[in-house]
Amino acid sequence: MKKTTVRTRVLTGAVALAALGAGTFGAMTATAAPKGDGDVAQTAEARKPDTLTSTHLSIDAATRAAEAALHAAEKENQHVSVAVVDRNGTTVVTLRGDGAGPQSYESAQRKAFTAVSWNAPTSELAKRLAQAPNLKDIPGTLFLASGAPVADKGAPIAGIGVAGAPSGDLDEKYAQAGAASLGK
Amino acid sequence: MKKTTVRTRVLTGAVALAALGAGTFGAMTATAAPKGDGDVAQTAEARKPDTLTSTHLSIDAATRAAEAALHAAEKENQHVSVAVVDRNGTTVVTLRGDGAGPQSYESAQRKAFTAVSWNAPTSELAKRLAQAPNLKDIPGTLFLASGAPVADKGAPIAGIGVAGAPSGDLDEKYAQAGAASLGK
Amino acid sequence: MKKTTVRTRVLTGAVALAALGAGTFGAMTATAAPKGDGDVAQTAEARKPDTLTSTHLSIDAATRAAEAALHAAEKENQHVSVAVVDRNGTTVVTLRGDGAGPQSYESAQRKAFTAVSWNAPTSELAKRLAQAPNLKDIPGTLFLASGAPVADKGAPIAGIGVAGAPSGDLDEKYAQAGAASLGK
Amino acid sequence: MKKTTVRTRVLTGAVALAALGAGTFGAMTATAAPKGDGDVAQTAEARKPDTLTSTHLSIDAATRAAEAALHAAEKENQHVSVAVVDRNGTTVVTLRGDGAGPQSYESAQRKAFTAVSWNAPTSELAKRLAQAPNLKDIPGTLFLASGAPVADKGAPIAGIGVAGAPSGDLDEKYAQAGAASLGK
Amino acid sequence: MKKTTVRTRVLTGAVALAALGAGTFGAMTATAAPKGDGDVAQTAEARKPDTLTSTHLSIDAATRAAEAALHAAEKENQHVSVAVVDRNGTTVVTLRGDGAGPQSYESAQRKAFTAVSWNAPTSELAKRLAQAPNLKDIPGTLFLASGAPVADKGAPIAGIGVAGAPSGDLDEKYAQAGAASLGK
Amino acid sequence: MKKTTVRTRVLTGAVALAALGAGTFGAMTATAAPKGDGDVAQTAEARKPDTLTSTHLSIDAATRAAEAALHAAEKENQHVSVAVVDRNGTTVVTLRGDGAGPQSYESAQRKAFTAVSWNAPTSELAKRLAQAPNLKDIPGTLFLASGAPVADKGAPIAGIGVAGAPSGDLDEKYAQAGAASLGK
Amino acid sequence: MKKTTVRTRVLTGAVALAALGAGTFGAMTATAAPKGDGDVAQTAEARKPDTLTSTHLSIDAATRAAEAALHAAEKENQHVSVAVVDRNGTTVVTLRGDGAGPQSYESAQRKAFTAVSWNAPTSELAKRLAQAPNLKDIPGTLFLASGAPVADKGAPIAGIGVAGAPSGDLDEKYAQAGAASLGK
Amino acid sequence: MKKTTVRTRVLTGAVALAALGAGTFGAMTATAAPKGDGDVAQTAEARKPDTLTSTHLSIDAATRAAEAALHAAEKENQHVSVAVVDRNGTTVVTLRGDGAGPQSYESAQRKAFTAVSWNAPTSELAKRLAQAPNLKDIPGTLFLASGAPVADKGAPIAGIGVAGAPSGDLDEKYAQAGAASLGK
Repeated sequence: MKKTTVRTRVLTGAVALAALGAGTFGAMTATAAPKGDGDVAQTAEARKPDTLTSTHLSIDAATRAAEAALHAAEKENQHVSVAVVDRNGTTVVTLRGDGAGPQSYESAQRKAFTAVSWNAPTSELAKRLAQAPNLKDIPGTLFLASGAPVADKGAPIAGIGVAGAPSGDLDEKYAQAGAASLGK
Repeated sequence: MKKTTVRTRVLTGAVALAALGAGTFGAMTATAAPKGDGDVAQTAEARKPDTLTSTHLSIDAATRAAEAALHAAEKENQHVSVAVVDRNGTTVVTLRGDGAGPQSYESAQRKAFTAVSWNAPTSELAKRLAQAPNLKDIPGTLFLASGAPVADKGAPIAGIGVAGAPSGDLDEKYAQAGAASLGK
Repeated sequence: MKKTTVRTRVLTGAVALAALGAGTFGAMTATAAPKGDGDVAQTAEARKPDTLTSTHLSIDAATRAAEAALHAAEKENQHVSVAVVDRNGTTVVTLRGDGAGPQSYESAQRKAFTAVSWNAPTSELAKRLAQAPNLKDIPGTLFLASGAPVADKGAPIAGIGVAGAPSGDLDEKYAQAGAASLGK
Repeated sequence: MKKTTVRTRVLTGAVALAALGAGTFGAMTATAAPKGDGDVAQTAEARKPDTLTSTHLSIDAATRAAEAALHAAEKENQHVSVAVVDRNGTTVVTLRGDGAGPQSYESAQRKAFTAVSWNAPTSELAKRLAQAPNLKDIPGTLFLASGAPVADKGAPIAGIGVAGAPSGDLDEKYAQAGAASLGK
Repeated sequence: MKKTTVRTRVLTGAVALAALGAGTFGAMTATAAPKGDGDVAQTAEARKPDTLTSTHLSIDAATRAAEAALHAAEKENQHVSVAVVDRNGTTVVTLRGDGAGPQSYESAQRKAFTAVSWNAPTSELAKRLAQAPNLKDIPGTLFLASGAPVADKGAPIAGIGVAGAPSGDLDEKYAQAGAASLGK
Repeated sequence: MKKTTVRTRVLTGAVALAALGAGTFGAMTATAAPKGDGDVAQTAEARKPDTLTSTHLSIDAATRAAEAALHAAEKENQHVSVAVVDRNGTTVVTLRGDGAGPQSYESAQRKAFTAVSWNAPTSELAKRLAQAPNLKDIPGTLFLASGAPVADKGAPIAGIGVAGAPSGDLDEKYAQAGAASLGK
Repeated sequence: MKKTTVRTRVLTGAVALAALGAGTFGAMTATAAPKGDGDVAQTAEARKPDTLTSTHLSIDAATRAAEAALHAAEKENQHVSVAVVDRNGTTVVTLRGDGAGPQSYESAQRKAFTAVSWNAPTSELAKRLAQAPNLKDIPGTLFLASGAPVADKGAPIAGIGVAGAPSGDLDEKYAQAGAASLGK
Repeated sequence: MKKTTVRTRVLTGAVALAALGAGTFGAMTATAAPKGDGDVAQTAEARKPDTLTSTHLSIDAATRAAEAALHAAEKENQHVSVAVVDRNGTTVVTLRGDGAGPQSYESAQRKAFTAVSWNAPTSELAKRLAQAPNLKDIPGTLFLASGAPVADKGAPIAGIGVAGAPSGDLDEKYAQAGAASLGK
């Protein structure tokens, strides 16, 4: 069984921070090799590293956030489902709350997907439809309040979605409670 | 617009290496906080970091590997499709080769998915069906030779799949050529 | 073959009624253990039961309601399909009426799904789109009149959907006839 | 807004136990009306209640079980995904473990679905394929070890599925650990 | 091998015409038994026949209609796809015209489906969205001109859909040409 | 709004019987025009009628059959789902029985689909896999005992599928009970 | 509106024939520029043309072939569906024959897809499963006799699939009749 | 193994140009036989060739265009995904850029699909929704700026889609950069 191992270079913190400073893109960091004295002859192409690293919530953190959102809703007697979606769009945690409506489960995932895609609360994103109404036709999205983004140094790493409360504002309050549990 | 920023801690290399030594799991590294003198009172739970990092092929490296596989096939007058799939199962690159059969495009993705899921060439994995025939019922997989895993310090980070040549052995030769282009 | 049996506690009626008084959530009732004298030291957490019960239409009742809706339509020479959907969103009964259009079968299911999700007739729900137009992008829903909710002590347990008549008002009349057959 | 309220009758415990004694079916209990003296003239048909109740894991219990399974795997340095599926086939909790392969997420759900469908560990069910090989063609199922059923008085109420460890035996050990956390 | 044969009764023409006079429903005719002298004691329920017949285009007629639509487009140098859909919503014929855009194939089927569902040209149906905008959310439909209904004694038996021309008016002209080929 | 009305010719009984004598095809009957004296000049092509009729179970008969199957199972304390599928493959009736496993609902539909496709009980069809194992890869089918065909003068018009009992033999007994209710 | 026009070079016949001699790949021909005197300085890379041409059946030829297959079946009183699939895997023509079983429509498409993918009759391809049983897990394929390839100078350009007759041998005879109609 | 070879005739340039002059249809060219002296008695029908050729980007050209689009975005620090879709609607190349949002991958394909379907930039096509709002319900499409068509002698042969930048205008600039790389 033959396996291939790629060139991997360790990223210096300074370079990483510079890359992350660029803003709204995902928390994917180029693991560039520190240039040593002997690197003079390398081409620009050769300098590009083969691998990058991306930042994710650990499953423990994601579960904690999902439960915080769920319990925030339960405290107000609301019955919701909660989802945490990764920056690559894969669902990490789902919790179908006791008594939550059947429409809430997939809604929560789509709201979380939408929040992490644009790194903004879905309540904000819904306003953008006034200028670009067809945004909502992008597969996997749902432009209803309650998706909350989770960022790492400004770059999105996850979204938290909540669905099932009587209003999107309530849903989003619980999603924000979930996100807040990570910042402590 | 309120955003949440998670606690992020920088991983020391030693811890990362230890974690990676465990073997067949994905290249996801716990970004644990270095324990300082003042950490005595913290609980074990609190010590767990909220974020992890995972390693990915850059798009440039993935494209280079896909093209290397495609050109290895073209040199032998074979018409194939090629796919590179990430450790989280998302497709990163697809190339539908000139004259490749219509069945090759999705096959290539499934082979790549299968290789990265178990960190082994699909020719090896197909042999495991003798013991566990129902493995092949797992959604998204295809147990046909030609998926090649790409590893980073032993942990899988991508799979390369090739489809369309008259035999799986040929397909896998090209996939390995793609993977080999990363190790140079 | 090892099986696990969860702790099950019998719900006292009083507690159940209190829980159900909360309103618009599904008819899922916490089966809390009656507190005995020896329970003093238990934590709030420990008190939470592991199981809940939810209320469903029996298949006989659901079939009766579906047929009542169908026959109400047939009496007026309308050709419709009928569906009954459970509070967990699964379809319980479908009847494709003689001569009903091909679009009616899935429509009926979606209308029923929508009605039970929000515990309101879909004619009411369609009006809510004026405030929240993107509600209709939630997967599985259809905001067209004729979905009728079925409630048990105020909590939704099923939805009845009818489709195929020339107007949504007619469809909803038949759905209500189906629901009414349960209240007798 | 017109809503319909169905006839609801309170189930006496004795009747429920009798019904549950029947065995392998789901924990759905007929909420039959106790017959009083005045019921003489009622037909058998009329006696049938319109509603039933089914038993579910609470979201807190389901989450606890999923985490127990996940942590059992983590203790042995295995990277898995976990799912809990309800008796009606809907997913209640998913946890995508750190570093778990991409094939593990849907596999866990299908194993849980399979376990709760037949109220048996999937390792047992896989053996039944010797007699009935086409059972595995039933949509939504996966006949690989590691799905563990959760029963309430002998009737299935949930399934726990684990996927991602090097063998199905390991996966099932963790699933059983999850189920065991409910029996304490 | 045991087979069951249902009671089949031959429909008298007079009854069929009466049923068909009712209007917009599908061409499904009750095959009621002619009442003879000895039928006095039968109940109304028992009189209902077990089978109905529905009317379909033969495959030769459907192919002829599809080709007529295609050739009408070709005469005007338009490149379209054509579909004929049955009253039960199943596609009977598809023709992907030379040079037709990739979006045309499924569009043609959906237009045909829409036309036969409501027994009206889709250009007419699109106008109804002014009153009932959510009609277009019914799965399988497409409210763009060019679906033409085919009726038998006033009841819909098929729809013809054309897609790919620069305007829906042109598409519908070709669809009508296809339908017209059946009336000769 | 322009509608097209096809040529419809009334089928003479004798021709219909001859056509139906051919055997295993669906109950679709050519509505050929009776040849009169003046038909001499017509071509063979022109003689072919544009429409055919197919035979279906009425919704009342289909519901009766589904309920008969369900009650046959209930009498033996089995918890099953039942489906009736038309000869064109569309589902006409579904009943999700009280306490039936979640896998039973779609299984019942697939068994019914399989039975009506080949006009044979699925227990018979499963035996054919010995000669043609890939038959079971045909989309929509399920080769497990319990699908029962319903025929009209030897031609298939519907299938009844039952799923959820501990064995396929039991399921098929109930399906046959459903079919038998139509032959009385 | 800005449009881009690619470099297009006309293929000389000789080069095309050489390319097509290579064998089993699709009829996609490189439109290489004839080298003129002034081409000396160009690199090999630069010589590669930007466009290729592929060969397809015209819709009229494809329809003729499908009808030939259908009529061959009708002559023997068999009720089948027919499909013609392009080398790129898209369906070009479908005909659902009178009285054909519901399983036949998608089967015909998959058989055609399989035949054109490997440029061989599906009866031949089914034999290859003895060596490579998992080939049949490739999405979109069906390894049942009756798919017939259509070639142009040895390269596959289409597949014809027939389904619905009592045996695959019969189905394939009709598919070959369809293909034969093209060679006249 | 019997294969069928269709009649193939070589297209004269003059005829091809005439056909292509017609405008907006795909680059599919009738390969008509040159009429010789002996062709007098042939009917127009018989003259129609059995095969056509269509023009495609080579995989090398398509990859080059995709990379040009990607690098144009990277130069401006934008993180996007890129797709190239063929005139027959099949995806030829996908590149998921480093740090691109999860919504970008399928969006890029749909934009490319939309551009090649109507041979116009999607920014233009989005304007057409003012007149025909339901165009956007056609399956597979996305009416958001950034899909760029690629034409060959005025006929569409591919579309390039880019997604992930903060605005559709930016996305389309990069798509146009990709298309421009082909015209050099």
